[in-house]
Parts: sequence; structure tokens; C-alpha cells
Amino acid sequence: MLLNFDEFFSINSKRMKKSVIRELLKLTAKPEIISFAGGLPSPESFPVKKVKEIVDEVLDNEGKIALQYSATEGDPVLREQLLKHASRNGMDVKEENLLVTTSSQQGLDLTAKIFIDPGDPIIVELPSYVGGLGAFNAYGAEMIGVPLDEEGKSAILLREELKVLDESGNKPKFIYIVPDFQNPAGVTMSLKRRHEILELASEFNLIILEDSPYRELRFEGDHVPTIYSLDTEGRVILLGTFSKIFAPGFRLGWILAPAEVITKLVIAKQSTDLCPPTFSQRIVGRFMEKGYLEQNIEKIKHMYRRKRDIMLDAFEKYMPEGVTWTKPEGGLFLFLRVPAHMGIDTDELFYKAVDRKVAYVVGSAFHCDDSGHDAMRINFSYPTEDQIVEGAKRLATVIKEHIK
Amino acid sequence: MLLNFDEFFSINSKRMKKSVIRELLKLTAKPEIISFAGGLPSPESFPVKKVKEIVDEVLDNEGKIALQYSATEGDPVLREQLLKHASRNGMDVKEENLLVTTSSQQGLDLTAKIFIDPGDPIIVELPSYVGGLGAFNAYGAEMIGVPLDEEGKSAILLREELKVLDESGNKPKFIYIVPDFQNPAGVTMSLKRRHEILELASEFNLIILEDSPYRELRFEGDHVPTIYSLDTEGRVILLGTFSKIFAPGFRLGWILAPAEVITKLVIAKQSTDLCPPTFSQRIVGRFMEKGYLEQNIEKIKHMYRRKRDIMLDAFEKYMPEGVTWTKPEGGLFLFLRVPAHMGIDTDELFYKAVDRKVAYVVGSAFHCDDSGHDAMRINFSYPTEDQIVEGAKRLATVIKEHIK
Repeated sequence: MLLNFDEFFSINSKRMKKSVIRELLKLTAKPEIISFAGGLPSPESFPVKKVKEIVDEVLDNEGKIALQYSATEGDPVLREQLLKHASRNGMDVKEENLLVTTSSQQGLDLTAKIFIDPGDPIIVELPSYVGGLGAFNAYGAEMIGVPLDEEGKSAILLREELKVLDESGNKPKFIYIVPDFQNPAGVTMSLKRRHEILELASEFNLIILEDSPYRELRFEGDHVPTIYSLDTEGRVILLGTFSKIFAPGFRLGWILAPAEVITKLVIAKQSTDLCPPTFSQRIVGRFMEKGYLEQNIEKIKHMYRRKRDIMLDAFEKYMPEGVTWTKPEGGLFLFLRVPAHMGIDTDELFYKAVDRKVAYVVGSAFHCDDSGHDAMRINFSYPTEDQIVEGAKRLATVIKEHIK
Repeated sequence: MLLNFDEFFSINSKRMKKSVIRELLKLTAKPEIISFAGGLPSPESFPVKKVKEIVDEVLDNEGKIALQYSATEGDPVLREQLLKHASRNGMDVKEENLLVTTSSQQGLDLTAKIFIDPGDPIIVELPSYVGGLGAFNAYGAEMIGVPLDEEGKSAILLREELKVLDESGNKPKFIYIVPDFQNPAGVTMSLKRRHEILELASEFNLIILEDSPYRELRFEGDHVPTIYSLDTEGRVILLGTFSKIFAPGFRLGWILAPAEVITKLVIAKQSTDLCPPTFSQRIVGRFMEKGYLEQNIEKIKHMYRRKRDIMLDAFEKYMPEGVTWTKPEGGLFLFLRVPAHMGIDTDELFYKAVDRKVAYVVGSAFHCDDSGHDAMRINFSYPTEDQIVEGAKRLATVIKEHIK
């Protein structure tokens, strides 16, 4: 008798969906398509030569350590550098507040694993990072979307939502926020807003999950302090990653959190993958020790700032009147909106765009309430400067062709 | 107001326990202690020079690919080698049957994630790999232990257990088996037994989770075919790892399974950590392409066989009459038992042994029913040959001193 696996799969696994983005990306993989769809760093940003220098030193001097298991908490060399890094970024962090992860996606997964029971509400942004939504969904969370834009109304909407939940006895497990150059929206939360959200968290006794993969890629303006650093009550968990400032192929990230949370995350990580990869950790640790990470960040900022400027100029030049887009001060993405009167559904337009050999990610993928059909996420880190101009032309053309 | 995180933690996370072994290992980390406790490969087994050769080539020729994201399913270079590797090991595997994981511990975690709902029974061995028990426990599985030894009675006991479960309508989600040089017992399941278990799985319509990290480290005798290769009905999931045949510091493993299961695992992996590390994968892929993995396995087998022989000789020479131990034909471990009449609890003896500067892992850690207080897991891969002899003397002394 052959098996019917559907009889065996867990309830949570039946809820899991294929990543919409990964499916769309398959359609956009042809070389003739200019893709604004992926979220990939530019390969030109990878410090290949310096990695080679470091790897050679690590293998010559400490190869046997680098190839062995490490502690679940992470390799001591990398941990030391991460504590210094946090301190440089205005955060007073101790050993007990730090866990190295296998990518910040694992940070999302482990946080979900230790907090979410099926049916638990959590507050997410409209729009929100799709990998966060996927991680929470895998544990059966009920996502409640609150628009967290720059305008100031979100704190009011958030308070209303929290009141309703509080009155129904349905306490959210945490508020999920990508505060810096948000994926997909490209906006950064103001200092005032960060304080307001912390006050709300205090009033309603809530945890904040702050996910900040792009924070260090600021092209202009001043850094806004992390919510973690503003918190005086130990209610913020901060996720970081090397994917955008070093290389995603290493799959390394970290979590800063109150000691009690780190203790629980370490236990959860033990049964998930025992420990982070020592080899990759030791390489990144030595890379940071030499000050190479800061140099690399400077190089990337310069590169992406140029690309952003070229994209903003091209959109200004080619997009039809009425179409709007965010002007990110950093990061990898901007968010484009088509006004309602044009009668365009960006889910449907996607296929027309691919026919025209240009691609984006549909706005609806980032909305837990299936809104966002007027929007697209546009990436400017991966395409070349020439592709950005040509892609902007193609995208503008396909929008113009479908205005009703 | 400060947070009380206990109000927020998930039900599953409250069930998670710190790894007993990791806690014990902290006590045994002093340099004067000879540790038979860890499960670490010998650092002498790591192919440091060849890794350096390969890394240099990868960074020179394909650095930008190696530092970028990969597909969730894994890097194509490594996947091709893994398919060939499976074929050399008598398994006819297609692309759709393979997923690269971040260590075989992740294989355990993802399998648990897609199958286990809280309260689901699963069948484990007595004794069983403690990392497997931890992964299943993290999703709320009810572990049912069945002695799966070499003697033949286990198939009978297993059938009885399955009948009871079947009659109560409480179908186990899978049977978890480490068939080759089992951790901790060091025993290998006979061909006959593998067939019997497959027949039982067919009769009761069950999934088998076959976890085989040590399989290729056979010092003598003939390879027994994997349960996966004997299965004609698509009910076996096989976990493999590079930790013992290459290096644990890379955290790479793989899963072979029916296509439907791989599809579900890929979705689960997307929200867990997006994809395995490209850098590590490409290095291992190129390493295998050059035939270095086979050479490395030969070197390790030679090294560990010597260590096993030295340990068996030393135990023969120093252990008091009545103490028994398994004679593994491969792998990293043997299992030692103290007869009941000696009145020794190996949980209690552990601290006396550490005082005597020798360490092991308590047998009870491997038993989901808290039995095994007469047993110890002994590792022979990590200590040096001299340490094995001296450690055996110390361990024999401490046992003799505590016979009642």
C-alpha cells in the first residue's frame, strides 16, 4: 500500500504556503528579463578578495577549530566582534544578550517557535516583510496588520487595535516591526514614532520584535536609534544579519534580546541545528577584527546610493503622472503605487510586465489582509545601472499600456 | 513595568529542555579531564589543507556565486554530487528526492515540523539519539520507546506496541531509527531486521525516519543496505550529514525522501532559514567532485578503527568482571553497561568520574522512559590514543571503587 502523506502532515505544515516571491522569481529568471523583483545584494558588493585573505589565515592558523562544532550561542571570536559592533551602534549589550543565528530568517523562526501557539495574534505591518509573515504563519499565528507608515497615524491605529485585542482578552504575542528602510516599503520609522510604540508596548505590556537587516546601509541623513536601544524595560528583541552588509551565502545573523529570551532561544536552537557553522563564523569574526566590515559597508552604501539615484531619476523621467514611489534613504527597495483611477491590479500586471521583460514583486505578497494590489516592490541593489534605466522605461511603458 | 516572559512563551517551548549532554560537557571541559563524553570527530580527521585548496579555487573562479543566496533545495554543484553519492551507495534518487539541510539536526527539526502535532505518538529506540528526542519533543511528540537491539526481539516488541496504538486509534507519525553504528549504542541493525521493520511499516501504514550519520565509517564487515534502499513503497525518509565524514563546522547535511515529502520540507525550510549556505555548499561540492571525500573517509576509518581497537583492548584489560560493552563495527561510540548487582547508578557515578578526571555521557539521557541508569555512552573518536588508555584505567578504577 502506498502512503497518503496528507494523512500524516501536521496542522501547522498544512498552513504553510510556498513563498509567492520564490515562485514569481522562477518566472523572472530568464536572462533577457530585467528583474527588480529579487531582494539580492549586488554580487559586486561581495568582498571576495578579502574573504580569500581571511580564509587562508583561518585555515593556516586555526583550521582545526574552524572545522569543529561550536557552542550553540556562537563562536567566541565572532561574538566578541558582535558585542563591539552593538556598542558602536549605541547598544549596551552583554554576553547574555547575544545569540548567533543561521541567518536572520532563523531569528524569525526561533522567535516564532518560542512564543507562538496556534491562533495567537501578532501585530505586523501593512505592508510587511514576507519572510516574517511566513515564519509566523508556520506556527499558526493570526496576523493582524496595522499600517505603520511615516505619517503618524499608525500609533493611533495601533492603539485602537491593541485596545480591541485587550478587551477581547486576546493578547498579541509581539509587534513585528522592520523600522529601517523597510522591506518592502523603503520607509524608515521616525524617532518620535519609535518612542510612541515603546510607550504603547509598555502600556499594554507587549514584546516588540525589531527586524533590521538594512539599518547600516544608510545613504544620507542621520541614523535613528534602534528601538532596542531606546527600550528601558527589556521588551525588545532585535534581529541582525550579515546578508546585506557582507554576503548572504554565509547565512549568518544574530539576535539581541533580554537574557531570559536568549536562554530560551538557545534551547530552541539546540534542537533546531545544534550550533551555527563555526567555519563561517570564524571567517566573519576575523573579517570584522581587521575592520574590513566597516570598509565593506562604505563601499556598498556608495554603490547602492548611485543605483537608487539612477532609479529615482529614471522613474521621474518615464513614469506616467499619478504613479508614486517612496524615496528611501537607504536599503535595497522602494515601493511604487499606481493610483486607483488607473484601474490597474499589480497582481495581473505582473504577467504583462514579464512579457515586456521587466519584473517586480506584487504588493499583495506583503499584505496579510491581501490588500496592496495597487503596489509593487522594486529592488535597486541587484540590477546594473544600465538595467535600472532600461527596466524603468519598460515598467513605465507597461503601466501606461494598461491604464483604463 | 517589566515583562514576565513566562506569560508569553509557547506551550511547546515550555516543554523544551536544555540538552543534558551540553550541560554535562560544560563540567568536562577542563583540560585535565579525559572526556569520552562528547560526540566530536577528531580534529586530526579534518581535511584542512584540501579545504584550503578548494576554497581558493572557489573564490577565484566562482566567488560571486558562492557568496550569493542559493535555491532552498540547495546548490546545484553539491546536489549533483549528492545524487552521485546516493547512487554509489545503492540508492536510485532523483532531483525531486533531495534537499540539502543546515546539518542533519535540521533534517530532524524539519521532519518534526511537517509531521508532528502536539500529543502525536512517535516510536523511538531505547536508547535513542538525544538530538532526535530533543527535536521531536520541541513539537510536543509523545515518545514511545521500543528496544531496537540486534537480538531480534525488537520486531516482536515493536509489533506489540504498534498493535496497542492501532487499537487505541493513536497512529504514530513515524518510527525513528538510527540503524548504523547507533548513537549511543554502537550497534548496527541486521538486514533481516530492516526487512522486518519495513514489513511492519507496510502492515501498519507507517513512515520510517532513518537517521544515518555514521554509516560510511565502517571499519570491518559488509555494509548493510539502507532501509531507504530496501523500501519499495516510498515510506522512508533518510537523513545524512557531512559532520562525521568531512567537518561539523560546515553544518551541512541532506535528506532523501519521497517527492511529496521533499516539497513540504522545502516549504518548511523557506520560513526556517531560506536556503542552505552557498559558500559551504559550493566548497563541499567541489571537494566531492575531486574525489576528496572518499579519500577523507578512508583516512578517518583508519584513524577511528585504531582508536576503537585500543579502547576495546584497554576495557578488556582494566574493566572489572561483569561490566559489558558493545563492539561497534564502525562509528564513534560504544555503550557500556554495569551489571545490576554492582549497585551503581551511572547518573550518580558521573560526578565521581569527573572527580577522577574522566567523563562519559549518562545512559539515562538517551532513554525517553528515564531508564538506562546502568549505562554510559563512550566516545572513541575524539580522545587521543594515549588518552583512551589512561581514560579506560580511570573509568575502571572509579567503577571498582563504587561497587556495592
